[in-house]
Amino acid sequence: MKMLPGIGVFGTGSVVRIIVPFLRAKGFVVVAIWGRTPASAQQVAKELSIPFYTSKVDEVLLRKDVDLIFVLCSPHLHAQISVKALGIGKHVLCDRPAGICQNDALKMVKASQYYPSLISIVNHSLRFLPAFTMMRKCLRDNYVGKRIDLCDVRIRISSLIDETEGYDWTCDERMGGGILTLVGSHVIDLLSFLTGLRATRVHGVIRTFESETARVQGIRRVTAPDFATFQLELGGPINDYNLLTGDRAPLLVTVQLMSSNQAGAFNQELVITGEAGALWVKGGDLHGRRNNAKEECLYLDVEDLENPTGNESLPRPYMKGLLKMVGALREAFQSVEDRRGWVKEPVADAATFQDGQYVQAVMEALRKSSRHMSWERVILADEEEQDLNNPLLTRAAAMLRHP
Amino acid sequence: MKMLPGIGVFGTGSVVRIIVPFLRAKGFVVVAIWGRTPASAQQVAKELSIPFYTSKVDEVLLRKDVDLIFVLCSPHLHAQISVKALGIGKHVLCDRPAGICQNDALKMVKASQYYPSLISIVNHSLRFLPAFTMMRKCLRDNYVGKRIDLCDVRIRISSLIDETEGYDWTCDERMGGGILTLVGSHVIDLLSFLTGLRATRVHGVIRTFESETARVQGIRRVTAPDFATFQLELGGPINDYNLLTGDRAPLLVTVQLMSSNQAGAFNQELVITGEAGALWVKGGDLHGRRNNAKEECLYLDVEDLENPTGNESLPRPYMKGLLKMVGALREAFQSVEDRRGWVKEPVADAATFQDGQYVQAVMEALRKSSRHMSWERVILADEEEQDLNNPLLTRAAAMLRHP
Repeated sequence: MKMLPGIGVFGTGSVVRIIVPFLRAKGFVVVAIWGRTPASAQQVAKELSIPFYTSKVDEVLLRKDVDLIFVLCSPHLHAQISVKALGIGKHVLCDRPAGICQNDALKMVKASQYYPSLISIVNHSLRFLPAFTMMRKCLRDNYVGKRIDLCDVRIRISSLIDETEGYDWTCDERMGGGILTLVGSHVIDLLSFLTGLRATRVHGVIRTFESETARVQGIRRVTAPDFATFQLELGGPINDYNLLTGDRAPLLVTVQLMSSNQAGAFNQELVITGEAGALWVKGGDLHGRRNNAKEECLYLDVEDLENPTGNESLPRPYMKGLLKMVGALREAFQSVEDRRGWVKEPVADAATFQDGQYVQAVMEALRKSSRHMSWERVILADEEEQDLNNPLLTRAAAMLRHP
Repeated sequence: MKMLPGIGVFGTGSVVRIIVPFLRAKGFVVVAIWGRTPASAQQVAKELSIPFYTSKVDEVLLRKDVDLIFVLCSPHLHAQISVKALGIGKHVLCDRPAGICQNDALKMVKASQYYPSLISIVNHSLRFLPAFTMMRKCLRDNYVGKRIDLCDVRIRISSLIDETEGYDWTCDERMGGGILTLVGSHVIDLLSFLTGLRATRVHGVIRTFESETARVQGIRRVTAPDFATFQLELGGPINDYNLLTGDRAPLLVTVQLMSSNQAGAFNQELVITGEAGALWVKGGDLHGRRNNAKEECLYLDVEDLENPTGNESLPRPYMKGLLKMVGALREAFQSVEDRRGWVKEPVADAATFQDGQYVQAVMEALRKSSRHMSWERVILADEEEQDLNNPLLTRAAAMLRHP
């Protein structure tokens, strides 16, 4: 049997404890782990029996037995580690939302375009959840008709603040913490996966209701948002196939996200209604109803031994999607003799770094919208732009192209 | 036993068929009915055994045995009939949303202020639903804490188009049809009833997804909206007591309303979350949970013989609220000897014509917001304004007062 690529993991958060057993179950070997401090790396290495640990990025990247890296650390390090890894010739799976701003994601896009023979995907695991792959198929088969009226998403989730190490990036909006980056990014990506359309204009209200926790009090405040409500107009097709035909009005999306340890159990619901019926995913199940017909269950999520149930830090649909994505990665490598060789088909539906940049662009527009109480256009920064650090230039250039 | 005031009813829609038996059950005598055409008036009069019918407004208003009128007809007639009725000395209950624009409502406000000895209330029956009166009490008792984070309202209802007489005002936005005026008005009013606060800025997206029905096709289109999503900032206190203290940020409200015969069963949920817990009304039941405690049922809506179950044209919570409101009206009259005499206390919580004008102002701001894709200030037109038909003057005057 073929030897699968060796894996290096960046990060010591709770998702690492979940993903390492998944990787092993699928036949991957986890050979090295990086942590922010030697102590944190050592502790997780010991806990998960990973043979090598370090707090130096290069010591993982330069290892000959590491072929694929999982970037699961603080978002401000995503771009730096991913770009370097690709340069050294390693495949990369990067956690959402691919950096802390669009500029980060753009650097990653450039690197991935420079090394097209390497895998570079963003961890948007919901794309691999069977209920959503099935929903996408039903939409393409016009289950809800040719005219789609509305996509509505509601998610309630427990607090996203990781207090195991005290105040960290999950408390801080500028470091990539909060419900918009950690959950909203999944939703924004999923909507374009399902519809084949991209948001062109957005409006949002983003809030931090709980600015104190048991451990974060006094001078330090939580700035990471725990609430977001937003509306997107989906209009720009991303590929040959999309759900808008002819001169239809943009597709309206409404989203409401809330994280709180007091808000009750995890709940996630996505409903798409159209002229001929409706489709909805609740948890991991897909339901549908055509007009004047009875509700039907189109996919029922079954509990199986292979799929552990969700826990507080990663609800079940995300967990299951992640496991499926790891399975797809295995398939991509499995069919080629060379340990590092791969085929595209099994991971063809995964989120690319370009998708990651798009998600960042939407989140930037949403933050601006919330600040200015205005609808904002989604501005996708171009590769050719010279000075990405100058927002005025970027904006002006984008407006020249899309007047 | 005291003789209750005689009632004249304006309108022949389905709500009339529901309300007349309620009125009789509470001891009122329905003496006359007005319809747009003699035929429609005759038909309902016969069906409901009402002794007198007419298509002339004055023939109801001038009757000596009519003391209280129920204005349940097309909104474009609300102001005209209500103002005239008060001038003739009749008590008035007017259906929501009190006319088709703020100017209509303002005329009604002026008339009601000119005749303070007459009852003048808007049919916002949810104020009388026990679950909401209890919720209001819990909020005042700080059940969710001093800091309220969010009010979220979701309503799904069957189509609001009345096709019994073909194309009518319920199909037409400018005539007062659609989910914003017929359901949104209730929500806007209820929120200020519950919190003691008024919306100062609003943002909304209003749509008509189903512009054709089985009977309305071809050249005629339904323009009445069947979908609205909106955000309100509640900031302006309406009386001594309100839920914002000190220099707190405005209270955020999110609302989503959808009407469709395909959207599934009626569903209405209002959730208020705060620092110390949450309260929610689902259907007619009130639930609550304080932080770190178990969910508790604070009011359970019991099916009783007196309260019929809801039907498609009037869901149960609205039906029950309406019955309670009719009961309150009876009490108001019951305790005074004179047939037309009344006391305020039982109907002190009813929506006044001023409340109706506020609701119209919020809806006007929401329509403007949806048209312009912008947040809009709620501008309450003043009594002193001379030229209310000139929107520019009205706006300019309002901006001078609230710069």
